Amino acid sequence: MVNGFMAAGIAAGIKKNNAKDLGLIVSTVPAAVAGVFTRNQIKAAPVVLDMERVAAGVCRTVIVNSGNANCCTGEQGMKDAIYMAKLAADATGVPEDMALVSSTGVIGQALPVAKVAAAMPALMEALSEDGFLNFAEAIMTTDTRPKMLTRTVDVAGKSFSLVAVAKGAGMIRPDMATMLSYVCTDVEADAQVLKQVLAQAVNLSYNRITIDGDTSTNDTVLLMANGTSGVSINDTGVQERFQSVLNEMLIELAKMVVKDGEGVTKLVEIRVTGAASDADADKMADTVAHSNLVKTAFFGEDANWGRIIGALGRSGAPIAPDAVDISFNDVLLVKNGLWCGSEAEAAATKVLKLPEFAVNIDVHMGNGRASYWTCDFSIDYVKINADYRS
Amino acid sequence: MVNGFMAAGIAAGIKKNNAKDLGLIVSTVPAAVAGVFTRNQIKAAPVVLDMERVAAGVCRTVIVNSGNANCCTGEQGMKDAIYMAKLAADATGVPEDMALVSSTGVIGQALPVAKVAAAMPALMEALSEDGFLNFAEAIMTTDTRPKMLTRTVDVAGKSFSLVAVAKGAGMIRPDMATMLSYVCTDVEADAQVLKQVLAQAVNLSYNRITIDGDTSTNDTVLLMANGTSGVSINDTGVQERFQSVLNEMLIELAKMVVKDGEGVTKLVEIRVTGAASDADADKMADTVAHSNLVKTAFFGEDANWGRIIGALGRSGAPIAPDAVDISFNDVLLVKNGLWCGSEAEAAATKVLKLPEFAVNIDVHMGNGRASYWTCDFSIDYVKINADYRS
Repeated sequence: MVNGFMAAGIAAGIKKNNAKDLGLIVSTVPAAVAGVFTRNQIKAAPVVLDMERVAAGVCRTVIVNSGNANCCTGEQGMKDAIYMAKLAADATGVPEDMALVSSTGVIGQALPVAKVAAAMPALMEALSEDGFLNFAEAIMTTDTRPKMLTRTVDVAGKSFSLVAVAKGAGMIRPDMATMLSYVCTDVEADAQVLKQVLAQAVNLSYNRITIDGDTSTNDTVLLMANGTSGVSINDTGVQERFQSVLNEMLIELAKMVVKDGEGVTKLVEIRVTGAASDADADKMADTVAHSNLVKTAFFGEDANWGRIIGALGRSGAPIAPDAVDISFNDVLLVKNGLWCGSEAEAAATKVLKLPEFAVNIDVHMGNGRASYWTCDFSIDYVKINADYRS
Repeated sequence: MVNGFMAAGIAAGIKKNNAKDLGLIVSTVPAAVAGVFTRNQIKAAPVVLDMERVAAGVCRTVIVNSGNANCCTGEQGMKDAIYMAKLAADATGVPEDMALVSSTGVIGQALPVAKVAAAMPALMEALSEDGFLNFAEAIMTTDTRPKMLTRTVDVAGKSFSLVAVAKGAGMIRPDMATMLSYVCTDVEADAQVLKQVLAQAVNLSYNRITIDGDTSTNDTVLLMANGTSGVSINDTGVQERFQSVLNEMLIELAKMVVKDGEGVTKLVEIRVTGAASDADADKMADTVAHSNLVKTAFFGEDANWGRIIGALGRSGAPIAPDAVDISFNDVLLVKNGLWCGSEAEAAATKVLKLPEFAVNIDVHMGNGRASYWTCDFSIDYVKINADYRS
């Protein structure tokens, strides 16, 4: 799949129902690594550990469990994270500080490390170059399907590859609190460059999806590059190509994450153009994408532009109320801040019935633009989140 | 009810079903006035007009309709607001600039001013000192009951009175977008002092309730003081007493507004203590009170402290994760950031079954404190807001 990487995913008994819940990625040689982690001040133990270890810029293996977040678990939680990483390091024969660890699941309960230890032989046996889909399955919590993408890129007679996996965001199915994503590539790159390209890609993808605005204690995105393709990111044009492919993959995975949210029936892109700056466009798209009123209207298939314009008005970015245009796909419903009438409304209502559509907002102040991906807010969302722990 | 004030509420045919939808308040003498208005950049025409007129600090009458917000209605909307205020000014024989006007209801449709004009004789005929309950009913949208409080305060052998009414917040039942509240008192005060006392009272009440974080285009709170009691706010101790009674009344009305939200089954106070500053406590209480995850857990009667601590971690105010205590009423469930066990959990779950309870959060950083009132987030909230316009 990608030169020099192997992966596995098995059932270790952490989750109920014998579902896969333990995953491993191993690079045959030391890989440069960059990470993006939750900004929440409450960080799970594995996040704290990974932030330290990623700073060195190199790693060999990542072990991940689902079913338990190892968060709000105190000193014992940190001991357990270190121990779990050590299990992976020992099994794969790499130095302890080259092993990373992630956890995802319920907050506040002790990690069952004995189950992880007992499962290590089976996990090692399952390792293979084609193991990434099993890995993607093992990191799922209430996701309904694994999320994996692969790409091969040709440059000047050579090629490099990428494989990327992700699991549902805490934003979608909180408490099973975590957006996790791992990208492995055989391109050659140093950690500093990886950090830059990962930051840009995450900012265009995972940082632009929202379900309910709650951030998780375990969010982790890791990018590992082991250089086994012989293509260097410093070769002419490679960084640009790599960035572009990585952006596209993470945007695609981000949309898959939103679409797979329980209770989600619609994927909606909020596109703001004509803002005074990109930062202003960002604020507006963010506010509209997070509005519960807008999102419940999407669920009701109601082209409720009053709620959209109300959200625009409280975003903090300046707008001229009489210069706002709003379209649903190509249907213009609001022109210069005023309703375009019942014929336009009927056409817009048809768009709202689609499983995917865009809301295009032009505020006519400048050239700033931004896109967010959001979803509808459904009765099932409330059901799932009200009943989650019971 | 309050010296020198009369009020009325009648059905003018703006709403369906012949419900009351037009209200009027008149002071027999010019009253000092202060107002607090929505901070949303999209402001309904009557809000824009009132902001101008309130700046003069004096008014005689307020006319209010429900069923139509007169918002996003362009130039015609402003003409309609001016015309509606003029109808009230002419009928009551006061200068045009001493008449204020509010509207609440659906956004983006033209105000049916002919219906208001036709109803003026009946509205005038209904005016009475006891008309405030009818007025409170006339400003309702999807509220299930009118909200009115009265108080009489004795000071040094004299007394003054207050009557305060409110209608459901846009935050609860958006689109029927508006939090409206009117307070009339016979105390004597100048507009500058009124502005101060109103700002403090609103900050402790209406600014601390939340249903879904969406602010309205029509929010208006007006405080009118006509001085007919012979008690001046400048007399010894009166301002303090007045402030205290006003704070208490608006907090009570604010809680009534939350409780009357459709879909709301629980009123929950989020009390943060021990923050580094009051401003930090405010951020934390605000973030917890707005979290959809926390609110859906309340609906599910689940003492889900992981979601509360997750929200605390993203509020922007500093916390020490291992110094956070969380109680539900008197039941301590989290001590030093760690779970207190299944016995505490069972006791906390009992608290969650109550229709009203408090979540007490102590972050042990200093003396900052803040309270917010929030509600649960129910299946009915989604149903109501998905289907609202259809």
